[in-house]
Amino acid sequence: MATPERMPWWGWGQHDQELPRGLLDLLRDELGVSGEIVSRPPALEDINIASSRANEEFLAALEGVVGKKHVRADRSERIGHARGRSYADLLALRSGKVLAPDAVVYPRDTSQVAAVLDICGQHACSVIPFGGGTSVVGGVNPDPQDSRVTVSLDLTLLAGVVDVDHDSLTATVKAGTRAIDFEEELNRHGLTLGHFPQSYEHATIGGFAAARSVGQASSGYGRFDQMVMGLRCATPQGEIVVKPYPSTAAGPPLLQLILGSEGTLGVITEVTVLVHRKPKQPHYEGWIFPTFVDGSQVFRKLAQSGVVPDVMRLSDEEESRVTMRTAQNEGATSAFGRMYLRAHGQSHGCVAIIGWDRAAHAQTARREAASRILGRGGGVPLGSGPGQAWLHGRFEAPYLRDALIDRGVLAETLETATTWTNLKNVWGKVRHALNSALAADGANAVIGAHASHVYPTGACLYFTVLAKQTDDPAAQWNNAKRAATDAILDSGATLTHHHGVGSEHAPWLEREVGYTAMETLIALKDHLDPAGIMNPGVLLRSP
Amino acid sequence: MATPERMPWWGWGQHDQELPRGLLDLLRDELGVSGEIVSRPPALEDINIASSRANEEFLAALEGVVGKKHVRADRSERIGHARGRSYADLLALRSGKVLAPDAVVYPRDTSQVAAVLDICGQHACSVIPFGGGTSVVGGVNPDPQDSRVTVSLDLTLLAGVVDVDHDSLTATVKAGTRAIDFEEELNRHGLTLGHFPQSYEHATIGGFAAARSVGQASSGYGRFDQMVMGLRCATPQGEIVVKPYPSTAAGPPLLQLILGSEGTLGVITEVTVLVHRKPKQPHYEGWIFPTFVDGSQVFRKLAQSGVVPDVMRLSDEEESRVTMRTAQNEGATSAFGRMYLRAHGQSHGCVAIIGWDRAAHAQTARREAASRILGRGGGVPLGSGPGQAWLHGRFEAPYLRDALIDRGVLAETLETATTWTNLKNVWGKVRHALNSALAADGANAVIGAHASHVYPTGACLYFTVLAKQTDDPAAQWNNAKRAATDAILDSGATLTHHHGVGSEHAPWLEREVGYTAMETLIALKDHLDPAGIMNPGVLLRSP
Repeated sequence: MATPERMPWWGWGQHDQELPRGLLDLLRDELGVSGEIVSRPPALEDINIASSRANEEFLAALEGVVGKKHVRADRSERIGHARGRSYADLLALRSGKVLAPDAVVYPRDTSQVAAVLDICGQHACSVIPFGGGTSVVGGVNPDPQDSRVTVSLDLTLLAGVVDVDHDSLTATVKAGTRAIDFEEELNRHGLTLGHFPQSYEHATIGGFAAARSVGQASSGYGRFDQMVMGLRCATPQGEIVVKPYPSTAAGPPLLQLILGSEGTLGVITEVTVLVHRKPKQPHYEGWIFPTFVDGSQVFRKLAQSGVVPDVMRLSDEEESRVTMRTAQNEGATSAFGRMYLRAHGQSHGCVAIIGWDRAAHAQTARREAASRILGRGGGVPLGSGPGQAWLHGRFEAPYLRDALIDRGVLAETLETATTWTNLKNVWGKVRHALNSALAADGANAVIGAHASHVYPTGACLYFTVLAKQTDDPAAQWNNAKRAATDAILDSGATLTHHHGVGSEHAPWLEREVGYTAMETLIALKDHLDPAGIMNPGVLLRSP
Repeated sequence: MATPERMPWWGWGQHDQELPRGLLDLLRDELGVSGEIVSRPPALEDINIASSRANEEFLAALEGVVGKKHVRADRSERIGHARGRSYADLLALRSGKVLAPDAVVYPRDTSQVAAVLDICGQHACSVIPFGGGTSVVGGVNPDPQDSRVTVSLDLTLLAGVVDVDHDSLTATVKAGTRAIDFEEELNRHGLTLGHFPQSYEHATIGGFAAARSVGQASSGYGRFDQMVMGLRCATPQGEIVVKPYPSTAAGPPLLQLILGSEGTLGVITEVTVLVHRKPKQPHYEGWIFPTFVDGSQVFRKLAQSGVVPDVMRLSDEEESRVTMRTAQNEGATSAFGRMYLRAHGQSHGCVAIIGWDRAAHAQTARREAASRILGRGGGVPLGSGPGQAWLHGRFEAPYLRDALIDRGVLAETLETATTWTNLKNVWGKVRHALNSALAADGANAVIGAHASHVYPTGACLYFTVLAKQTDDPAAQWNNAKRAATDAILDSGATLTHHHGVGSEHAPWLEREVGYTAMETLIALKDHLDPAGIMNPGVLLRSP
């Protein structure tokens, strides 16, 4: 795979991304969206940002550390680091008026990161660690409540593989390394990281660590926080170095505290991860179940069986319907549609993707045992066509979103996790909350969901929302998102399974963890970042 | 299995534990130990403890919370809670002079725990959470540097299963529940926890959580800290409740900071764990390898193969030799010896135990694939005899230790973990350090080791030391332990894989985690336990 271009400032992909015919039909029929382009990202020169507040002395101090060309205060760089990639971010960028950082700094090694933090501390300036900029929860945005000069600390020049240990299957990599570049380097060693979130083409290793990322093959390879063996983290109070032991009982693990800290405690500069031998013959296949509830029962059994596929993804009725409709006559995914229809003879049912990705012994027996469980639970095999189609298109959705927004469509995702026992309840409550909120604003909505990232005790539920934008699309989504998040917490599910907290979920964190835990997290931040310069407004309530 | 009696105050088991003939022969031949009993634990009435410093007002306040009969300041209770079960602890108890807590309090619910912490805070008294009392690192001992009145908070009446969720495979249990009782209750539900550390017969669930315990079947069931989904922890600043989500990215997980806090932040009162369906046919078998290095290469391959046995344990040359010699003509373990000799025709080689414990699909194929890997790496199968013998005797060692001390033998274990790449190095350095230190003190030593608790990136190394006691056995072991611990850290391994930090390892923790991390742990404690009443002297340096 060719390394994709860096994301444009206004979205994920390129101008003029085409939408599948079936999706356009669905937008027209169900949402009343014509499919005409009704808005475009403005030209860069039309974006309205305030002048940089960074003064000469401060910029000169930064230049003294990283060199003149690695301190940037030009419009292009500032706008390019103004926002992550949530739907709210994309609306803000397209609005033509955006809060941008005052400068962008590119350190190239760990000591430069530490020195930049020192300078920012001395000048009472805020620092936003910035990797791929793919946050969908406002994790890299300047805090509107923060009046200080703000620096976006772009880590993408802090890149490269430091060490690969073929015997212990570990690799040490600098934090700004893009996932796709790291994976390609590992592939050259016959290895894989096995971490493929939808942000894979743009995100960095440090970002995965800071946000507790989860990839599509997490049932096999685990969450990113389970892959991290050690790391280095520069904090305003000094560096924390977690050595890459295979396992330890030497007290509470600060490793776990840094994973998920989202740049609020310090800057992760280097990560040592578990890697795997690259599989020779990954195998992906499709299955179909009568209902989502049937399929989720089978997924539960598989997750508790000892023969867990590496990728497990079960679409609910609505997501399956949208997928099928979208896939009709659409090149790469058409095989999916044909096989689905042939197997099922009608247009309902729930589609599952089962992927065997890891290089493991007894693979055939494990696949056969899993297939028996899937079949006994009412699953019908669709063969490898749908699996290959899914694999081929699995990083496509964020590109489509740009094209949907061009056509006046609200397009966003949100996610949670809960126990198997509670799964149906949460699935119903969140859909109801989204539907009600959007209907109250006058919009029909198409809300699909899938269960994925399975665990013995439960699974992630991932929702995709499509609706016609109202005249105030930001308020429209804000209402729906708030309703969905309340429903998630009210029904006993977690605030986020893998998108992270950022600034968008921050108002709900205390409700999730409780007062004493929240105060403890704040105390930890106060210790490591006494001036509160690290990523203000993210994760914890503002000081 | 009948629930064993509570441990006697002076050790693990019962008076007059017999030693195997082969072991007595080895003590005589190699250590110059006659096998005659040279010391006995003193009678309880001969133990010298200071009078309780707990005043009437304080005791009355505690009685107001838990009731009169659940506040104890009598000699028997105080001595019974004076020490854990490290070799140093046993020597101290046998010395007849010991620092005991001033009172022992038995709360029966979470609100009583919180109320006791409040009272202790008001009276500036220290609190030592006490479960099974099986710590081997000084985790439950009063701090000699602490001049405050000290309460041992015995949690064993805070016991019982709160809830079992058969669909999500979780169980919620009160923290003072003994592991063996919990397991028996789960078995009645057709379930198992799958956590079998050597302390299994006496330890509590809360103790496992507080100390990041690891059981013998950890390759299959995971570390205890990986089993915990949620918990409740009473701290001097209020209760932290971690809800049992299957997985979450909602910020740094305080769950992981409480696991491993060893009673220094608060008292774990309730734990929700992942449980498993009870296996129908566990299968344990023996293998033998030409050398430890050969065997560990094969263990590495297995750990990275995707067909990892649930129990993996590889004895080095010395431990294998001692095991064989001890097992000769000794009932349950004699089959082990006979098969070993028959297979090998001589008395060297390294014995491995491979256990398949979990209820999993494709088990036969996994076992076959694992057997091929074991065989290709030079392993010779010994059949199920040695496996059954190991299974039968796997909780015996701590009972034997009491009998060894009676006969003037230093008998202790220590452990670490490191990467596969570094395993041989650490194995050599630690044995060398122990041998040198004991030889300098004039004692021959027998030092065996095994690799167990395997991970893709490395394994635990577990050392057992036998030597003739000198005239000052406490100093003898202190020297050897210090040398071994320095060697562990110097060679890049972790301070502890599963024994925990306690007071015995506390002086080394900063060397392991570094200054900034140590200061952060102290800040965390200062926040949750501002008066420093929780388990002083353990984990962190004294305030």
